[in-house]
Amino acid sequence: MSLGPGSAEHLTPRAAEALHEAEVVVGYKTYVGLVAGLVQGKDIRASGMRKEIDRCREALDLALQGRRVALVSGGDAGIYGMAGLVFDLCRAHGVTVRDGREDAKDSSDVLPVEVIPGVAAFNAAASLLGAPLMHDFAAVSLSDHLTPWKIIERRLEAAAEADFVIAIYNPRSATRPDGLDRARSILLRHRPGDTPVGVVHKAMRDGQRCLLTTLEGLDPEDVDMQTVLLVGNSHTYVWNGWMVTPRGYLDKYGT
Amino acid sequence: MSLGPGSAEHLTPRAAEALHEAEVVVGYKTYVGLVAGLVQGKDIRASGMRKEIDRCREALDLALQGRRVALVSGGDAGIYGMAGLVFDLCRAHGVTVRDGREDAKDSSDVLPVEVIPGVAAFNAAASLLGAPLMHDFAAVSLSDHLTPWKIIERRLEAAAEADFVIAIYNPRSATRPDGLDRARSILLRHRPGDTPVGVVHKAMRDGQRCLLTTLEGLDPEDVDMQTVLLVGNSHTYVWNGWMVTPRGYLDKYGT
Repeated sequence: MSLGPGSAEHLTPRAAEALHEAEVVVGYKTYVGLVAGLVQGKDIRASGMRKEIDRCREALDLALQGRRVALVSGGDAGIYGMAGLVFDLCRAHGVTVRDGREDAKDSSDVLPVEVIPGVAAFNAAASLLGAPLMHDFAAVSLSDHLTPWKIIERRLEAAAEADFVIAIYNPRSATRPDGLDRARSILLRHRPGDTPVGVVHKAMRDGQRCLLTTLEGLDPEDVDMQTVLLVGNSHTYVWNGWMVTPRGYLDKYGT
Repeated sequence: MSLGPGSAEHLTPRAAEALHEAEVVVGYKTYVGLVAGLVQGKDIRASGMRKEIDRCREALDLALQGRRVALVSGGDAGIYGMAGLVFDLCRAHGVTVRDGREDAKDSSDVLPVEVIPGVAAFNAAASLLGAPLMHDFAAVSLSDHLTPWKIIERRLEAAAEADFVIAIYNPRSATRPDGLDRARSILLRHRPGDTPVGVVHKAMRDGQRCLLTTLEGLDPEDVDMQTVLLVGNSHTYVWNGWMVTPRGYLDKYGT
């Protein structure tokens, strides 16, 4: 299930209800911490980075024992979150997944699952910057932990070449400090240096920081794993401190 | 502001509060109808399709008169929604926009604006299908009302070539019945015919319908303007009635 960007204001009622109904809450410790107030007294299983498979396996084991489990992700669980791994593991272990929204009597090898959507990190980031995602966009993660860098490069290249607005997830980590510079070089082959870039750190939670810069001006020091970058397309403008990608209404109809 | 997919379960508390605080609610009639129960007794200004500029201008005029206005969009207002047009029009008419999250005393040419994010249509659709958006993805609208078809084609081509999962918005309308077939032909140049396609109609509201098919099997009759299509990448699988794009955890670490 999805926690949204972090503040209770943007947690959906369905997600809040699922947390309330859960006996066990499993998740990355930072995300579990965001909803600490809502899960007091529950069985909490919080763990660190790169423990995704362990977390997911634990959640599945508990659920198959008949416990009601909330496996939490920040943002939207279906976007670079935990939803996929639940299906991957069930498929690998021969556990049938049925739609948890429907009532049914389950045997020990059938698991009811409900994927609860949320406000994704890049939606939250975009809303703070203005309206940068108003037209066709692509999301690319720079993490080469599970994806070969060659594929990441090819996607950046394609997205830049076809003039998508680009949301960059996981833009920088200690283990690959030069990924962001390499990404920028690719983008600069197709976009001018003054292309607007929004840098949003911890959107809608403690420590939030928003910055507007350009492809050329982007300082890697402003970027870490908790940052989302939004790179404009060729029509994106910055005005009055806002970053906006027009859909083209005024070009067609005037003002 | 964003209504999310439509059901109250997925309307964020901040969005519900903004509706509650509003004196006037402006929006496309279908979306205003989704929250009819929450806006009773308010000044409602609902209008039809293709009235985006009129709606937005009306909302701005009312707001500049000092009224508290909620300009609503389905899904996320920042994704093919109304947020961008607010900035476009203010910029064209010399109205300064300031961050409505902060308190201030405003003069008649300064407008406080808060963009309230929501659960976007494709997040809602993805959650019903399983986890199809777990890896890099691109969103493309097939509407050539404001965007030349050449650009749409180029984006589809790039997204398909670079193996993005693709979310297709506005896949079909009465005025361009062949757009979907042309889009499919482009995708089929880069993806096999058995590539999974999720067809989600009216996600999370009355009349919801989900269908899993393939690029080859996709029937345009199942698709209209209220449908979102999710086209898998080369790793996307269908299993047990779910559509899933793995991020690669099990390939790297085993099960």
